Amino acid sequence: MATPHDDVILMSHGGGGRRTQQLLRDHIFPPLDNPILRQLDDSACVTIGGAELAFTTDSYVIRPLFFPGGDIGRLAICGTVNDLVMQGARPLYLTLGLILEEGLRMDDLDRIMQSMAEAAREAGVQIVAGDTKVVEHSAGNGLFVNTSGLGQRRPGISTHVANARPGDVVLVTGTLGDHGMAVLSQREGLRFQTTLVSDVAPLTGLVSGLFKAVPGIHVLRDPTRGGVAAALHDVATAAQVCVKLDETALPVRPEVRGACGLLGLDPLTVANEGKALVICAAGDEARALAALRSHPLGGDACRIGEVCAAPAGRVLLRTRIGGERLVELPLGDDLPRIC
Amino acid sequence: MATPHDDVILMSHGGGGRRTQQLLRDHIFPPLDNPILRQLDDSACVTIGGAELAFTTDSYVIRPLFFPGGDIGRLAICGTVNDLVMQGARPLYLTLGLILEEGLRMDDLDRIMQSMAEAAREAGVQIVAGDTKVVEHSAGNGLFVNTSGLGQRRPGISTHVANARPGDVVLVTGTLGDHGMAVLSQREGLRFQTTLVSDVAPLTGLVSGLFKAVPGIHVLRDPTRGGVAAALHDVATAAQVCVKLDETALPVRPEVRGACGLLGLDPLTVANEGKALVICAAGDEARALAALRSHPLGGDACRIGEVCAAPAGRVLLRTRIGGERLVELPLGDDLPRIC
Repeated sequence: MATPHDDVILMSHGGGGRRTQQLLRDHIFPPLDNPILRQLDDSACVTIGGAELAFTTDSYVIRPLFFPGGDIGRLAICGTVNDLVMQGARPLYLTLGLILEEGLRMDDLDRIMQSMAEAAREAGVQIVAGDTKVVEHSAGNGLFVNTSGLGQRRPGISTHVANARPGDVVLVTGTLGDHGMAVLSQREGLRFQTTLVSDVAPLTGLVSGLFKAVPGIHVLRDPTRGGVAAALHDVATAAQVCVKLDETALPVRPEVRGACGLLGLDPLTVANEGKALVICAAGDEARALAALRSHPLGGDACRIGEVCAAPAGRVLLRTRIGGERLVELPLGDDLPRIC
Repeated sequence: MATPHDDVILMSHGGGGRRTQQLLRDHIFPPLDNPILRQLDDSACVTIGGAELAFTTDSYVIRPLFFPGGDIGRLAICGTVNDLVMQGARPLYLTLGLILEEGLRMDDLDRIMQSMAEAAREAGVQIVAGDTKVVEHSAGNGLFVNTSGLGQRRPGISTHVANARPGDVVLVTGTLGDHGMAVLSQREGLRFQTTLVSDVAPLTGLVSGLFKAVPGIHVLRDPTRGGVAAALHDVATAAQVCVKLDETALPVRPEVRGACGLLGLDPLTVANEGKALVICAAGDEARALAALRSHPLGGDACRIGEVCAAPAGRVLLRTRIGGERLVELPLGDDLPRIC
């Protein structure tokens, strides 16, 4: 019997967790099905006239529009650039779709456009086409932004989540949960958390250096909506492996850990917007970490776990006290509208 | 002195008329400026790894979601496909960004996804990447859709608005104003206008046949938001020519003319979603019209005017009674949310 929840869209359908997966699996993917879409990667890989391209899109509905460390404009550039970068592509061109709400202050729009332009310069991309629509004032969203991105793939590189193999190591390029907790603290007015700052940044340069040091990276993923938990669930499912994390190795700032504790959130499920998960052969670990740490955005890079054969499809956490617990895919209720 | 209107976004900023142009010119383009964006075409022309590509984006905020002849899903595919087609490109791949409102009925979403899939098949494109976000229920928009598109340009073809030359003829592929009036009649509950049906359709096949017959088309534009008036103003300004239209030649269905009359609208400023303006040398007119009329979507194709040298930058209408009037660029207040 269908529950009422099956009949309408809920906020949790947008949380990046299990309910998002159900929505995509049952309602979005089936009518559109094709071999490229079926790859379910951060970007689609397409080839046109001999050119190997990565093509991706993201809409941004974050509230508030301005948060410590960034704004919706910077986020919209970095998020889409990073989806291309995770595909092993050189990001080149973006399109910009703006949906503005009647009553949006023009000086807020100007600040956001300026921030977008700066982030595009940082990321090395150009915005080459756009579209602007206006809708009636309603819940005070102010604006929604869509950016789509086009990049050129590095020949012979595949960073698909299915490439993880038992024996691989799992690295992360820096601290976890900074973006989600900065936005949430701003939104909820958690004044004591003034030190929380979003990590939103384009990873073009960091990953370019990584590829120079270790061309044979197996998997690259940015742990955005749904956090590290959702990203590694994708890996475990696609590659049919087990990902084992060490709780003591997880780099989490004390202030982020504190805010998560207060709100009952797990830093593993909180969004990051300037971090990458890197999975590579154990023999490449030292070179990969050295390359990451030599970049300003990778100073805190470290190993957080490894890939095992069994139990396939699971993500496990070795806890501080020596036990092991399942890292579950969040349902999606935790953190709405953080990207 | 700044008026209050300069300080906030108004609905008319989204109308596709003068106020939209001001917004783009003063607030959107300057921070993002680059040579490709400066072309201001329906799609950006970029070259990657030797492949000549067209890249475009559009967001769809139409209300109601379902209207006679289509829905937001069909519109979102056709609109973006047509922007690629107008660039002389073969449309290949789309991305899909959905912003769903909490409370949207799942069966409405399913109908829209199905309609999108059908339109994509008709247009010959695949949806290869996507993103889904959920926002709180507010004004009952239901959903917003962004589609971005990637196509391969035909070598040596340029259909830029600046290519119009004095002596050229101006053709249109069919009747004017069908989409805008169908949506408006549905929204305003104009029951007597039940015969109004949107023309929303992908122009891939129609334009492909046109290029086979006349490879040297000068300009292609789809007269969407802002209608024929806005599209030809772009031509007149970019090419520094005068476009002269014949009122008696404009193909407008009697029911569209009637509805426009009742609401005080000019069919020249009403949106179309399955029509193209074609500007070509006078010597190519007969072949172009024959090619268009041989396609199911081009049966009503006809010549509506010509390009003259002066007064440069103007669009003029030779009226039924032999006079001449200026076709002004609408301010943008007329028809909000029709795409």
